[in-house]
Amino acid sequence: MRTEPAGTPLGDGFHLYDTTLRDGAQREGISYSVPDKLAVARHLDALGVGFIEGGWPGALPKDTEFFARAAAGELVLKHAVLVAFGSTRRAGVRAEDDPQVRALVDSQAPVVTLVAKSDRRHIERALRTDVAENRAMVADTVAFLRSQGRRVFLDAEHFFDGYTFDPDTAVGVLDAAVGAGADVAVLCDTNGGMLPLRIAEVVAEVAERTGFRLGIHCQDDTGCAVANSVSAVQAGATHVQCTANGYGERAGNADLFAVTGNLVAKLSMPVLPEGAFAELTRTSHALAELANIAPDTHQAYVGTSAFAHKAGLHASAIKVDPELYNHVDPSVVGNGQRVLVTEMAGRSSVELKGAEFGLDLAGHPDVVTSVVTTVKDREAQGWSFEAADASLELLMRSALGEPAATPFTLESYRVIIDRGVDGEVIAEATVKIWAAGERVIATREGNGPINALDAALRAALTSSCPWLEDVELSDYKVRLLSPKHGAGHGTDAVTRVLVESTDRAGSWTTVGVHGNVVEASWLALVDALAYASGARQRRAQSGACSGSGPIATR
Amino acid sequence: MRTEPAGTPLGDGFHLYDTTLRDGAQREGISYSVPDKLAVARHLDALGVGFIEGGWPGALPKDTEFFARAAAGELVLKHAVLVAFGSTRRAGVRAEDDPQVRALVDSQAPVVTLVAKSDRRHIERALRTDVAENRAMVADTVAFLRSQGRRVFLDAEHFFDGYTFDPDTAVGVLDAAVGAGADVAVLCDTNGGMLPLRIAEVVAEVAERTGFRLGIHCQDDTGCAVANSVSAVQAGATHVQCTANGYGERAGNADLFAVTGNLVAKLSMPVLPEGAFAELTRTSHALAELANIAPDTHQAYVGTSAFAHKAGLHASAIKVDPELYNHVDPSVVGNGQRVLVTEMAGRSSVELKGAEFGLDLAGHPDVVTSVVTTVKDREAQGWSFEAADASLELLMRSALGEPAATPFTLESYRVIIDRGVDGEVIAEATVKIWAAGERVIATREGNGPINALDAALRAALTSSCPWLEDVELSDYKVRLLSPKHGAGHGTDAVTRVLVESTDRAGSWTTVGVHGNVVEASWLALVDALAYASGARQRRAQSGACSGSGPIATR
Repeated sequence: MRTEPAGTPLGDGFHLYDTTLRDGAQREGISYSVPDKLAVARHLDALGVGFIEGGWPGALPKDTEFFARAAAGELVLKHAVLVAFGSTRRAGVRAEDDPQVRALVDSQAPVVTLVAKSDRRHIERALRTDVAENRAMVADTVAFLRSQGRRVFLDAEHFFDGYTFDPDTAVGVLDAAVGAGADVAVLCDTNGGMLPLRIAEVVAEVAERTGFRLGIHCQDDTGCAVANSVSAVQAGATHVQCTANGYGERAGNADLFAVTGNLVAKLSMPVLPEGAFAELTRTSHALAELANIAPDTHQAYVGTSAFAHKAGLHASAIKVDPELYNHVDPSVVGNGQRVLVTEMAGRSSVELKGAEFGLDLAGHPDVVTSVVTTVKDREAQGWSFEAADASLELLMRSALGEPAATPFTLESYRVIIDRGVDGEVIAEATVKIWAAGERVIATREGNGPINALDAALRAALTSSCPWLEDVELSDYKVRLLSPKHGAGHGTDAVTRVLVESTDRAGSWTTVGVHGNVVEASWLALVDALAYASGARQRRAQSGACSGSGPIATR
Repeated sequence: MRTEPAGTPLGDGFHLYDTTLRDGAQREGISYSVPDKLAVARHLDALGVGFIEGGWPGALPKDTEFFARAAAGELVLKHAVLVAFGSTRRAGVRAEDDPQVRALVDSQAPVVTLVAKSDRRHIERALRTDVAENRAMVADTVAFLRSQGRRVFLDAEHFFDGYTFDPDTAVGVLDAAVGAGADVAVLCDTNGGMLPLRIAEVVAEVAERTGFRLGIHCQDDTGCAVANSVSAVQAGATHVQCTANGYGERAGNADLFAVTGNLVAKLSMPVLPEGAFAELTRTSHALAELANIAPDTHQAYVGTSAFAHKAGLHASAIKVDPELYNHVDPSVVGNGQRVLVTEMAGRSSVELKGAEFGLDLAGHPDVVTSVVTTVKDREAQGWSFEAADASLELLMRSALGEPAATPFTLESYRVIIDRGVDGEVIAEATVKIWAAGERVIATREGNGPINALDAALRAALTSSCPWLEDVELSDYKVRLLSPKHGAGHGTDAVTRVLVESTDRAGSWTTVGVHGNVVEASWLALVDALAYASGARQRRAQSGACSGSGPIATR
C-alpha cells in the first residue's frame, strides 16, 4: 500500500493535496456522479498531484461507492495516493466501534485525513464536549487508523480562529494527533476569514513551538485563499490543500492551479512531475467541464483571458517586446497570449490579429480602417468578436475583397415548435436554399428549434457538401444581453449565440446576434459553414500535402 | 475645486481609489457607453469611495466626452473627487506643449494621476529613452499640472519588478514626482506577478527609505491582488487602487469590494462613510449589471454564494449557532446567509428552507422525505433549485397537499419562426388554454419565440387574470447543460431556463428544464404565474392589511 506520492522532484518532502472531490463538491452548482469523480481523479493524477482526497466514505453513499470502485480497479493512480476524509470517533464511543471510523478503514484508502475541532468554542458549543475528550477522540482515532496500517493527516478545523482565541487548546489538538502517529498537522482556515500576513505569522509560530510537519487549508471568504496558502508555504508549511479552480463552499477554496502556478513559477518549487506544468491550463478546463461549470475566463494563469491584452497601448508595446508585459511566459502553463480586437483596439491590434490568421493587413491601411469600423459598429449592437475568431477572420477576408465562401444561398426558413394535447413537444424546421445551382428544400425534426434547423440545413446540403459530415457542432452558448437603457422585459433582450464547430482538422468559433434566438443561431451556423468551406478551398488550392494539415483552433 | 475626499472618518488620511472606469474597462467583454460611465461613477460616489478615476481624456474619445459631460454638470459627486488618468509628456517635448498633457488640464478634473515607467528595462526598451530623461518627463509634467492647480498622484508602473531589478532607478522616479509636487507615489504591480509577503517587504522598505506617502495598485495575475493590496496597507500604504468586482485586463485588478471588506471587517479601518458598508453587496451587483457581466456568485463578501451553506453537516450546525460558521455577519455587507437545498442537503436543510417560506415541515417527516427525493430526482435531470426558490416553494406546497394555484390549464401551444425571402424574421405563438371555465385561444407575435409565447399566454389570460398586468418578466437566463456522458452535438443539450418575475410586491425566480428551450421556458413561465397566483390568494385570505405587503424576494 503506497502512502507517499510518486514522481515529483520534491517527493514526500512537499505535498500537493487536492480536495476537489470532497471540499470542492460543496460548491453551489456542483453535483458529481461516481463516473465524474473517477474522471476527475484521473485528470488530477495525470497532472501529478501527490494526494487526491476522494470523499467521505460512510457519510455520502456516492463517496462510499467511489472508494469501492476505485479499490476494485477502476482507478489506477500513477502519481497520486488516494485519501479518505472523515471525522474522529464520536464522544463516548471506542474508535473501533464507531461505524464512521470503520467506513474509513473499509474504503481501503491508504491515507486518511481526519477532521477535528481545534477552536474551544466549537468544541464546547457545536460538539458539546470538553477539551480533554476532544483530544482523546483525536488520539484514539489516529491510533486506531495507524494500527490498521494507514497514514494519517489531521485537518485542524477553525485552527486560526481557535489559536487566536485559545492557543493552548488549538495546539493541544495537534499534539494529540501527532503524538498518536499523525504525520501532518493541517491548519485550516475553515471560515476563510484570514489575511496572509497573519497566516504566515501563525504558521511560523506553530512550527517553532511544535516542530511538527504543518499543512495549510484555506477558504476564500476574504478573497485571499491563494495568497494565504502560498504565504503559509513561505512560512514553513510543506503540505497544501487545494481544489481545482477553487471550487468549494461559499466563496470557495484555494485554487489548485493558481497555487501551483505560484509555487512553481514564483517560488521555484518543482511540485509537479517533469513536463506537467504545461498541462495546467488544459487540466483546469477539463475539470471545469466535468464540474459542468463555465471556466472562469479571468482565472490567474489558466483563464482564456489571463494573457489577453486589450489596451491599444499594451498591444502596440507587445509588438515590440512581449516579455515586458506578461508576468510569466504563457506557454509554460499551456496557455497562450492573445490580442483582443474590440472597439478599444487600435489599428495595431487588428494588424496583429490579421497576422495570426495569416493575413497581411499591414500593407492595406484602408482595409484596417474598414475592419476597425465594422468591429466597432457591430460591437455596439451586441456582437463580440473576442471569442469568435472565425467570424472575425471572415470579416477581415471580406474586407480584403475575398468572395464569401458560404456554400449556399438562403431563400427562407421556418421553424415550428408544437406542444400537443398529449404534452409531447415537437420541433420541426424547413429550409429552402440554393446550393450548387439547385433549389433544395429539406425538413427535419430536432429536440429543439436550433437542433432542428441545424439538421434541416445539413440535410439540404448533403449532396452539394458531402464534407459537412465531418463538421460537428461541438459547443453552443447563449447569452442574453439586456437592453441597457431600455425598460424592456427579460425576453425582449438581444441574444448573442456562440457556436463552436469541430472537424478532423481543428475547431473554430463563430458568433451571431439578433433579437430572435433562432436567427442569432442561424447567423452563427452560417458563419461556421462559410469558415469551414473557405478553409477547405484554401487547403485544396495549396495542394494535397497541406490538405491534411490542421486548421488552427480559433 | 475640491481635491480631497469627503465624508469618511479617515478623511484624506486614507484613500480608497477606484479605477473601474479606466483600468476596469480593459477587461475582456466590458464596453461602457458614456451614460454607463456616468452611472458607474454615481454608484461609486454613493458607496463613498474617495477618488473615481474616470478615464484617459485625450486618448479615448469616450473618456474625453465623459469628463466634458461631468464638468458640464451631469455628474455631481458627494463623497468622491474625480480623477483624470494620463501619461507624462513625451520625450523631448515641453509638458505645456504636449497635447495629451493639455487634455488632462482641459478635462477639468481636480486630480490627475500620471503614469510613469519605473523599471529601467521598460524605460530603455519600450520607451526608448534614458533614466535621466524619464525623470525629467515626470518632474516637468507634475510641475506643470501643479502650476495649473491640480493635485497629482504618480502611478509608478512595473514598480515591484523595477525595484527588484534596479532599486535606485525605481525610487528615483518617485523622487522626481514627489520633488515636483506629487503627493502620493503609487507602487504598481502592473504585470501582476507579485506575492503578498514580498509586496509588504518592498512597501515597508520604500516607506522607510523615502518617507513618501505610498499607494498600491495590484493586478491579479497570481490570484493575489486583494491580498497584495491589503498587505501593502498593513505595511504602510495609505492609498489603495481597486476596481469594482476586480474588473481589469488579463486576470483583472484588486476587487474593490473584497479589499474594502477586509479593510473594514478585518483591519477595523473605517474607509467608508457611516452606513455605506451595508451597501457593498448591492453596489457590486449594480456595477455588474452596468458592465453587463453576470455577477460572480462566489465572490468574497458580496457573491450570492458567499454565505451559502450546502453541506448537511454545516447546515445542521448552523441551526445551532450561525456565528460559528460565517467569518463575518453577512448583513454587515448587505448580504444574507442562505441554506442550499440540493441532493447533498439533508433533511434539516429542507426544514430550514421551509421555515424561510413560512412552511412548518418539521412536523411532517413524510413531506420532508418526499421533497428531498423529488429534489434529488429533478436535479439528476438538470433542474437546479438553488437559484429558484419560488419553484422550490411550489414543490414544497404541493408535497404538503396544497392544490396547485396555476390559473389555467394548457391544451396546446405552437410557435412558428419564419424567415422570409426578404430576410425579415417573424416569431408567432398560439396558445390554447382553459381559464375560468372557458377555452381561450390567443396568438401574438414577439421578437423571439419565448417573447411571443409569453405575449400569447398573457393575452389569453387578460380577462381571467387582470392582475397579470402588474407581473413583469424582469430577467431571463438560459443555460445549456452538456450531456455529461453522451457524445451528443452542442445543440442536443438539455436547456435550463431561469425566469425572474417582478410585481409591485417583490420578485421571484422559477426554473424549467427540457431538451427544447421553448418548452423549458414555458415550464418556468407557468411556475412563475402559479407562484404569483398562489401568493395573491394567500394575501387575499389573510385580509386586506397584509394584502399590500411584499412577497419576499425569492
